[in-house]
Amino acid sequence: MHIAIVGAAGMIGRKLTARLVSDGQLAGRPVSRLSLVDVIEPAVPQGFGGRVDTSAADISSPGQAARIVKPRPDVIFHLAAIVSGEAELDFEKGYGINLDGTRLLFEAIRLAHLEDGYRPCVVFTSSIAVFGSPFPEVIPDDFNLTPLTSYGTQKAMGELLLADYTRRGFIDGIGIRLPTICIRPGKPNKAASGFFSGILREPLAGQPAILPVPDTVRHWHASPRSAVGFLIHAAGIDLEPLGSRRNLTMPGVSATVAEQIEALRRIAGDDAVRLIRHEPDQLVMNIVAGWPQAFDARRAKELGFVADASFDDIIRTHIEDEMEGNL
Amino acid sequence: MHIAIVGAAGMIGRKLTARLVSDGQLAGRPVSRLSLVDVIEPAVPQGFGGRVDTSAADISSPGQAARIVKPRPDVIFHLAAIVSGEAELDFEKGYGINLDGTRLLFEAIRLAHLEDGYRPCVVFTSSIAVFGSPFPEVIPDDFNLTPLTSYGTQKAMGELLLADYTRRGFIDGIGIRLPTICIRPGKPNKAASGFFSGILREPLAGQPAILPVPDTVRHWHASPRSAVGFLIHAAGIDLEPLGSRRNLTMPGVSATVAEQIEALRRIAGDDAVRLIRHEPDQLVMNIVAGWPQAFDARRAKELGFVADASFDDIIRTHIEDEMEGNL
Repeated sequence: MHIAIVGAAGMIGRKLTARLVSDGQLAGRPVSRLSLVDVIEPAVPQGFGGRVDTSAADISSPGQAARIVKPRPDVIFHLAAIVSGEAELDFEKGYGINLDGTRLLFEAIRLAHLEDGYRPCVVFTSSIAVFGSPFPEVIPDDFNLTPLTSYGTQKAMGELLLADYTRRGFIDGIGIRLPTICIRPGKPNKAASGFFSGILREPLAGQPAILPVPDTVRHWHASPRSAVGFLIHAAGIDLEPLGSRRNLTMPGVSATVAEQIEALRRIAGDDAVRLIRHEPDQLVMNIVAGWPQAFDARRAKELGFVADASFDDIIRTHIEDEMEGNL
Repeated sequence: MHIAIVGAAGMIGRKLTARLVSDGQLAGRPVSRLSLVDVIEPAVPQGFGGRVDTSAADISSPGQAARIVKPRPDVIFHLAAIVSGEAELDFEKGYGINLDGTRLLFEAIRLAHLEDGYRPCVVFTSSIAVFGSPFPEVIPDDFNLTPLTSYGTQKAMGELLLADYTRRGFIDGIGIRLPTICIRPGKPNKAASGFFSGILREPLAGQPAILPVPDTVRHWHASPRSAVGFLIHAAGIDLEPLGSRRNLTMPGVSATVAEQIEALRRIAGDDAVRLIRHEPDQLVMNIVAGWPQAFDARRAKELGFVADASFDDIIRTHIEDEMEGNL
């Protein structure tokens, strides 16, 4: 099986590559070849027995999508995206990569399909940013797409393209609406959602963290390991039962900030919790007020997608995957 | 007030032009200038006191959208589209006009906005084709966009763009999801929805008509006069109360084919009804099975959009507007 990952150098892309290398197979078929693409050339993974090609490519540039499609990968994971904050600051770049890049990739596949009937499985990472307030406390699977950012708009448009290209028979597509990833590894960043990870990751490492919102704020989370699990599962199941609705909200853990903090206390003690300083930030509070709190992700669950069991588990996963198991 | 109509030569475009000429004003402001654009040059309307410019332009061609925007119309009605059947047959043409054309128009406005703060009211005709089965019997305003055609996909993508360009402050946009237009004037055509009009229009003119589906089929209708009324109303109201959800399902008349036929009987008698021949067509039946039956168009009604009062009224409107009042 030949698997291409577009956006392979990002956080999820690297973890997905590592998981495929470690598993050596996908849905029971051995992985014989990996094509890893990103705007910066992805690293060659260690310990993979098959062929690996890495390349730097901007999918919004002419001809780049065709290059990815040329060796006819069986599965294409399309993770490449300009993130929410940057897409909001740079209107043209966001539409260029998130909308045009996605469309060019799908178009390259369509042209290959017209040539020789090529029809790969395409796993597209969408986001709960396709939803925006006002919405019910628990959002059902058939809720309106109401993005409140350009990023969410571009992801929603990608979802619509994916469904239409699938209906037309050019691809066998599935869109995965990822929850907010928590605990995101690495350095603190300025994303409005950064504190959800920061208030856990920093204290776990003995560092102080700032909480800019009241601890009553509720949100929808998945660990990086679960997110990779969703993508692997999506590429391995029969997609026919999805019918025409090819984009799925993933299950997650709905938790208040207070519940996050209590999970931290259970696992790392009061000393860790004392490293969190509450500094209300009205701007962040306003942004977060428009975000979803919980979903009834019934369709995804019925199809076998599995979320983290609890916030305690999310923290334990972080300690295992990012801290070599040592608190 | 300067009003531009993109797609002015189509059925709705011509009726909208006639209505604006007849009213001489929009929301209390005199109409001083009309710019009429379509792929074929629209006719100059009779009896208009102001300035009229007509031009032939394909909005998907480079520079054409900028030409429309250059004189800074106060209101732009964007009606131009490749219809459902053609967009399904010609994939590239459908995406070219319905998606790229719409985006190029919005982009030309954005660039003008960056130049001098230009921010016109944009009224975009969308369609109930943004919805596809399975759905509830009565579809609520917050239902998922689930198109089952490329046309519906392109309209849904246009809706998302309209909302994002509005949120960004480039346009003051509103998307109007038109019901199926009934009674559509003119010759019978091969559109799958053609019979909804044909079984009334042809018998009213003393001609036979074919009914390809059971008379229990229920659908959502508006007269051409109501459709034009929706567009005029949309351009005249304050759009701020819409918030971030700028696309509205229009009110309509939900009727079964049997109810349509009984309305025909009340107005034109048994002889007219006898001209309808039932010839089941499995293909049409399958297509129509995926169409919406009724909507709870609450938001639009609260904003003052008014549907036809009954199917009898829809037929009477046709007799007045298309048959000079003579049955």
